[in-house]
Formats: sequence, C-alpha cells, structure tokens
Amino acid sequence: MAAPCSDTCEAKERSLRERVPPLLTDLYQFTMAYAYWRSGRHQEPAVFELFFRDNPFGGGFSLFAGLEDCLLFLRSFHFTDEDVEFLRSVLPPNTDPAFFQFLRGLDCSGVTIRSVPEGTVVFARVPLLEVAGPLAVVQLLETSLLCLVNYASLVCSNAARFRLAAGPRRKLLELGLRRAQGPDGGLTASRYTHMGGFDLTSNVQAGFLFGIPVAGTMAHSYVTSFNSLEEVWPQTLAAVDGDRDPVDFVSLTKGWLTHVCELLGAESGKIREGELAAFLSYAIAYPQNFLPVIDSYSVGCSGLLNFCAVALALCELGYRPVGVRLDSGDLCRQSLDVRGVFRLCSEHFSVPAFNSLIIVGTNNISEQSMIELNKKENEIDVVGVGTHLVTCTKQPSLGCVYKLVEVRGRPRMKISEDPQKSTVPGRKAVYRLLDAEGEDQSVAHLRSQKRRCYMLQGLVTHPQSSAAQTREKVQSSLQTLHPRYKRLQEPESYTVSVNEIQNNLSKTQTPFTSCGLLCQQVALSERLHHLVTELQRGSSIDSNFLLAN
Amino acid sequence: MAAPCSDTCEAKERSLRERVPPLLTDLYQFTMAYAYWRSGRHQEPAVFELFFRDNPFGGGFSLFAGLEDCLLFLRSFHFTDEDVEFLRSVLPPNTDPAFFQFLRGLDCSGVTIRSVPEGTVVFARVPLLEVAGPLAVVQLLETSLLCLVNYASLVCSNAARFRLAAGPRRKLLELGLRRAQGPDGGLTASRYTHMGGFDLTSNVQAGFLFGIPVAGTMAHSYVTSFNSLEEVWPQTLAAVDGDRDPVDFVSLTKGWLTHVCELLGAESGKIREGELAAFLSYAIAYPQNFLPVIDSYSVGCSGLLNFCAVALALCELGYRPVGVRLDSGDLCRQSLDVRGVFRLCSEHFSVPAFNSLIIVGTNNISEQSMIELNKKENEIDVVGVGTHLVTCTKQPSLGCVYKLVEVRGRPRMKISEDPQKSTVPGRKAVYRLLDAEGEDQSVAHLRSQKRRCYMLQGLVTHPQSSAAQTREKVQSSLQTLHPRYKRLQEPESYTVSVNEIQNNLSKTQTPFTSCGLLCQQVALSERLHHLVTELQRGSSIDSNFLLAN
Repeated sequence: MAAPCSDTCEAKERSLRERVPPLLTDLYQFTMAYAYWRSGRHQEPAVFELFFRDNPFGGGFSLFAGLEDCLLFLRSFHFTDEDVEFLRSVLPPNTDPAFFQFLRGLDCSGVTIRSVPEGTVVFARVPLLEVAGPLAVVQLLETSLLCLVNYASLVCSNAARFRLAAGPRRKLLELGLRRAQGPDGGLTASRYTHMGGFDLTSNVQAGFLFGIPVAGTMAHSYVTSFNSLEEVWPQTLAAVDGDRDPVDFVSLTKGWLTHVCELLGAESGKIREGELAAFLSYAIAYPQNFLPVIDSYSVGCSGLLNFCAVALALCELGYRPVGVRLDSGDLCRQSLDVRGVFRLCSEHFSVPAFNSLIIVGTNNISEQSMIELNKKENEIDVVGVGTHLVTCTKQPSLGCVYKLVEVRGRPRMKISEDPQKSTVPGRKAVYRLLDAEGEDQSVAHLRSQKRRCYMLQGLVTHPQSSAAQTREKVQSSLQTLHPRYKRLQEPESYTVSVNEIQNNLSKTQTPFTSCGLLCQQVALSERLHHLVTELQRGSSIDSNFLLAN
Repeated sequence: MAAPCSDTCEAKERSLRERVPPLLTDLYQFTMAYAYWRSGRHQEPAVFELFFRDNPFGGGFSLFAGLEDCLLFLRSFHFTDEDVEFLRSVLPPNTDPAFFQFLRGLDCSGVTIRSVPEGTVVFARVPLLEVAGPLAVVQLLETSLLCLVNYASLVCSNAARFRLAAGPRRKLLELGLRRAQGPDGGLTASRYTHMGGFDLTSNVQAGFLFGIPVAGTMAHSYVTSFNSLEEVWPQTLAAVDGDRDPVDFVSLTKGWLTHVCELLGAESGKIREGELAAFLSYAIAYPQNFLPVIDSYSVGCSGLLNFCAVALALCELGYRPVGVRLDSGDLCRQSLDVRGVFRLCSEHFSVPAFNSLIIVGTNNISEQSMIELNKKENEIDVVGVGTHLVTCTKQPSLGCVYKLVEVRGRPRMKISEDPQKSTVPGRKAVYRLLDAEGEDQSVAHLRSQKRRCYMLQGLVTHPQSSAAQTREKVQSSLQTLHPRYKRLQEPESYTVSVNEIQNNLSKTQTPFTSCGLLCQQVALSERLHHLVTELQRGSSIDSNFLLAN
C-alpha cells in the first residue's frame, strides 16, 4: 500500500504514527461506525468535505497546511489488538463482537483524497480536502484529519501574517516550543511556521524530522551562571590560521575592554565580571559562532562593552564574531545604539568585521509589535518570535469542520436552524475569480484553483513536495493574491465561486447566486442554488412516509 | 533507575517518550551545554526554579499540573546514537567529538526534583518546580520541562474556571480534540481538563492512556447520511427481557410518532424521514444508549418528535432511552421547551423514564457563555465544551519560565533593565498566609505550602497519585482558597511570601518587604531583600577585575 518513501519520510511517518494513534479520536466515531456496520451501510460510498467557516485573525485569507500529515496518517491507519480490546471495554456491552473483527481488519484501501495543494492560499467555505470512501471508514477519519489540518493551517497562516508584517527581507526565527500547547503543538508550530515564511527555528526535533534550519546560542542562565574570570577555562585560544601558539585570550580581551571603555567613555566599575566570563567561555568554545545575549544585566553599562571586547579579541585572532541578541526593553532604540557602537568600533579600531555583525531581537513579539517594529527606525536583522506566533493568541483555533456531502451518489446537506451551521450539499468544484490586472472587475478572468487527487483507493498518487518547495509555494501563492485581500487589518473579502463538480469550466460562467443560508463571500452556481432550495424544502416527495404505512 | 510502575504507567511512559523525544528542545541548550562541558563546569551543582509571572486569564490563581509527565520524561531521558549523530550535524563543526560521547552517556541520575504537588492551587512568581543537579544536565532539561508544565497548568486552570462558572453539579464534557493545537495538544487537554474539573471526554486515547471516562453517541453526519426508512436494517428489535419475538420496531415507532404529533399538535409533513431512519438505526444498534443529536434539521418540527417516538417505542420494549443533544441555537430556551415536552409525554403516556432523560448542550461554549448559561433558567444536564476550553482562547499561553537561582551553593540572579524579567535569587521556601476564617487579616494564620521531593538523584521517591486522586486534590485545594481570590473577574490578588530555604518556619514571621523589582504580590523576607539588593549592586567586590590584571 505504501508508495516509495525515503528515510526522512519514514522518520516522519513513524513520528506521526506515534503522535496520532488511531484511538486519538472522538468516541462517537466508533458508535456511529457500529450503527452503520450493524445496518449494513458501512460500505456505502460516501464523500466528506473539510473546510473552515471564517478566515482566521480577521484576515482576508488563510493557508492550507497539514495535507502531508493526513496522507501519512491514512497510509498507516489501522487498529491493533490492544486498540480493539480497549474499544471493547468502552463501547456498550451489547456491541456485536463481529464488529471488533471488522475494526481489526480496517484500513484506508478504499479511501480517495482530492485536495488543494499544501501551502495554497484558501478562503472560508472552500472545500479544502475531499475524502471519499466507505461510509464507516471516512466517518472514522473525521477527528484525526480535522486535528491535523486545523492547527497546521492556522499556525501557517499566522506565520504568513508575521512575514507580511515583517517585510520580505528581515530574517524570522521561531522559538515558541516552551510556550506551545503541548509538545506536539511545539513541533507542529515549528514545521508550519517555517512553511508560512519563517527562516529558522530553535526546535532541534523540527530540524531532525523536517530539515528546518535550527539556530540558537545562549540563554541568560548561561550568563548568570558565571561569577568571575577564574571560571574561564581554558583561558587560551589559538588564532584561526593555527600558525601561532594559543594566546592568553582572557588578557587579550581585558586589554580590548579597556580600549572600548575609553572609546565609549564607559565606567569599568559597572561591568559585570560574570558576564565577561560567560562571553569569554563561549567564545573560546565556539570562536566562529559568537552571538551572546547582552541584556542579562545592562546593555549599555555591561553587555555591549563585554561583547565588543571579546569580539575585538576574536577579530585580532582572525575569527568573525556573529552578533548579539537583545531580549528585553525597547528593541528598536537599543538596536540603533548597538549599531552605532559597532560602527564606531569598526572605524576606530579598523575592524571591518564589525560592519557585518547582526542584531537579533526577541521580546514577546506579537503581530502588532512586528508591525510597529517595521514602521520604526531600527537595526534588527533577525526577529525571534515565540508565544504569539505558536499559540496564535489573536485566534487560537481555526474551526475547520468535516461535513458529509454525498452518500451513494446522492447529495447530503445539514439544514440547521443556525444558518452558519448549514452546509452546501454535493461535491463541488471551486474557482477563484481573478481579475486581469488593471481590467474592470466585470470582465473578470476565470482561472481554476485545482484540487488534485492525492490518494486513490489508499495509494498515494502524488509525490510530496519538499519543505522548501512548499515554503516557496506559499510565497508564490500569496503573490497571486491582490494586496487588498492581504491587508492585515480590514481586508476586502474575496468572492469564492462554488459549482457542482459535474459541470465543466464553461458552466461557471452562468450567473452566481448568493445563498441566504451561507456567508456572503460564497457565490453558488444557479444549479447548486436550486439543489440547496430543494433539499431545504426537505423530504417533500417522501413526506407521506408516516401515512404510507 | 525506575521505581515500580504498573502497566498503565508503562503505557503512559511509552507514549510520553514518543511524544517528547529529548531532541524536542531548543538548540541553545546544546551550545550552552557544550560551553559548560568545554570549560569543565558541566558537573557543577546548580539549581533552576520554574515559575510563571502572572496568573492566567486575569484570574487570582492557577493550578499546577504536568509534574507526573516531567518525572516520566526525566526517568527515561537519554540520547540515542541517531540523536547524537543529528546533533553532530547541527552543532558547529569545531565541536570537540568527545562532547558527543558525553551526551551519549547522559541521564538524569544526578537530578533531584522538589515540587508543589500536582493539582495544587498556586500563584504568580511562586517556584513550582525546583530542579537541582549537574549544571549541563539541568540546563538541557529547560525547554522540555517548560513545555510539559506550561500548557498542562494553563488548560487545567482553564477547566477549573469553567467548573467554577458551571457550578458543582452540572456534568462537564470535554470535546476539543479536533480544534486543539496539534494532536498532542488534544491529548494533553483531555487529561488536564479532567484534572481541573471536567467529568468526561470524547477523546478515546485519553481514556486508553489515563482512564478518563469517555462519552459520545452521534454527529450530524450520521443523521444526514440517512434518507429514508428503507435504509433501516434490521427493522426489528427484541424486548429487553428477551421473552418475546423481536417486534417490527419501525412500525412500532411510526405508531408512537402519530401519537406524539397528535399530543403536540405537530405537522407530520415537516418531519424528516432520514432523521427518523437515523434514530431508528441507532436505537436498534444501541437500545440502551439512545442519545441522538436532534437539531440536524429542526428541533421543534422534526428532531424532538422523532426522538420522542423512538424513545417511547424503546420504553414499550423495556429499554431506558438516555436523552438528547442540542448543538445549535439558544440552548437554554430549547432545553426548557424540550424538558416541557418530556414532562408532557411522561404524563400523557405514563412513561416515568421520560422524567429522567438528560439534555446535553454543545455549541461553542466559552467561559462567558457558561457564566450566562448558569444565570439563565435552563434544563441542560451536561455541557460539552471544545474550542474555548482546549485552546484557552482567553489566554493561550501561561508563560512559565525556568531560571537559574544557584550554582555551587551561590545564589544567582538575572537583573534585567526590564523589572518584570528580573528574578529572585537563591533557593526559596514559599508560604501561603491563610486567614483563620472570620478572623482579622492582621492575625493571619501561617501555614506552609509544602514542596516535596519527587525525585532524588534520578530516583522517583514519591508514589504518583491516580487521576481521580489528583482531580479531587484540585477541588480540595480550591476549597482552601477564599472566594475573593477565586472570582473569575477582578479577583483580589493573593500575597505570596518568599523566604530563603535555609530559614525555618518561625523565621517567616519576620516582616516581609515588598521588592520594587518584582510584582507586588510577592513579599520577600528581610534577609532575601538584602540579598537582592546586594546582587543588584553587582560585582562591587569584584569590580576591580579589570585593573587587577
């Protein structure tokens, strides 16, 4: 049943199987499966659609993510003896034992998946994933598929918004693992924020499983763990070319510190010895990767001076220090001060390497503070984002749903008294109405937003894209979207056209009708509108079933 | 190294190992560990404290959760060859190869954990977990421990607030898996919302791993998948006593439906045949567990009538129908209408079972709507809560931090220019100042909130409580807290007293000083206040280190 799969793919599949066992679902999936099985309906062909009802974060779009995980989950979907025994203990005692044998033999060999490609721009009410297969099986998949798409799409969309707020050039680093909603919340966040536009993650497991570039140097605890220069060991460092004997790096740095204090008119009495010891130890361990956090005590009175001294000593030995991290206070103002000192040192001490030092800023960055940061003058090269990115504080859930649209070829519909909870019946084709740039809206150019078949009768039919490809896809997909829909606040709402799947493209040029039951951004084709009306009228043809007996 | 562990415990430990591999951490833990190792400091005894800075949800308290997972994680903490090979590929190329051998041999045999018990009421700035051990090891544990405590405590506290809002009697059902932040977000939520006061979960895996009672019957898709009574099979059902031959259950129900329509003056033309077929099929499959969702079309015109008919037919055969679920609209008003119909049926048809039918309400319940629901007249017996509970929409992250407080017996402190980010140095004892009820605050009764040793040099020393025990602990711990601190809105802030750990209880009766650096709810003992001032003044003694050379 498995398509060819590389080593990395196997590690991902194993990790997913461990994190998403088939019992990680709602109990009612099993009670319903039993009722279908009991009445002999479990093999009836059925179709579910997965979609969300509103674009997240008050925005004008979302990104679709989680497809690859869904396919991995479906490939290995089956219940073990242990699973089935547990189900036996929680389902009502009169459940027919043969049902558990049926469960034990179940897999997704009858399941076909059509989907929007991973990383595509999507909109509210658009069917993202279409799941077709035996009624009992596709019902059983509901919770797992929702769980895999909901958060992945949400956090990917959130990352895209942070990317839009930050502009295309600044490097973005995700570091939310410790604040995520559970361990896998952290792993999922690292993966899909990278897809949504982040460059780096602090999460090692995300690097291991998904090949995302990882970054990080030191925390405040490292700095505060040092107390005096006596703790620095070894105290020597060899020059990068290795030609000379190792020099006394502590003395070399102390000399530079005196020069730096003179240059900046700083009081040496306020410099923290423990901080200098920490920087020295780190630089001696990793002379090519020196990027300390400089605000454990005071940036201006201690951290920046200590950094410059160690970095100048490294330069003297031929190494290139990398930069600094600021983790508190007014990042913009501090970055300007820090850059000024770097320029001064570069000029005064003739050290060109000081012109390419980078400044990393991390301090509880939200979408709003990213927007503000981008407006203000600053010298921050890399922004690290944690809590607000990974937990999506602005809206922590996307609210995807999974609705039955067809059984045995007949369209199905939920007609709730709550209009928001009603569904559009039948399988659908979805189109985005794209304007040719500069043309009038009324001569809108029609282009299809294709859903492709990704799994046919349990076989994965479409090669998966790499993380880098999908990441690129996100940015190119966002490129096709007009800025008015991408505005982070009060975007225009995008009109999605929904048509029955049997129609070909030309049919979509028939007028679209806005359906009172649904949100206004969805335009239904005329035939689909008729179908909705007919199903709403209900079992009019069959309404005599009571008297018929 | 492992203490005795039952089967369930093993399943939990395995699950945790799979969900929280040791690479699920920030890269800088490894770069710091290397720098410590390189300078020979990796074995120095160090102490970290884990705490949060503000009570979540604008509330007056939090609950501490995640301890058991932390202990399971620590018991099995080690790096595989594969892990180490990956680390070799991401750490700088000049990393000494012997460091990777050191990592390969690492475990938590030198780690000691003192902690507040799982499920205890706690407050901002209180050290919840104290982690003591070799500097490099306890540093490496940071991200994993934070990740395990942060969300567990947050979602447990959220559940406790929902429980306070709902009152003690109403049953609460968690059903957030599909909307959670990733699969494990869902699993963690099910576990800790149960601990925080929920009775049931829909999540089967949570039942499997943690023994939480699971519940669920059917979704709308089940109802809408049926179209006509012809799909009902088998059409017969035997009476509960099994004495008679199976009867034609469809005809029996149709008869009852006619009676119900007559009684209520309802139009039979508006009744959905598919919905009746769905209810019949379910009742025939699970006659003892009949609890359908009745708003797939219209509660008043169809769902309620169909339910009553099937339930009356079940009663005639000696079964006890369970109740109904409402999933949209005004739950309070509908529950009153539904209860009225149940009473009428009970009386008119002399069916006492109709007096004990339960009404389940599920419709995007938030803390606010739970408060409102509790104020309004209603007949809802069980409330199902999903999105707002598990994703903690009001505040999706707790913001726990892990700070170094001691190295080689010397207190350490971070003195940021941002006062909120400064820490209280040294190991601490924490006390809650409890009033004797009715007495004046000035004669406050002092009682210690004990932290216990849970792991000594890598060995688990304290037997874990069962889920039920911890759940009870939460409620009894909340009982000790005065209502003014438990108010969901604008609670009073609780004063926490922090003392150096060397002092005995009597010493805490020395005056407490409020420290400008910290939030005002924390009162420091006089000696601790001196220590803070001294460390803030900094390396005054050592400040000549520059000139000393």
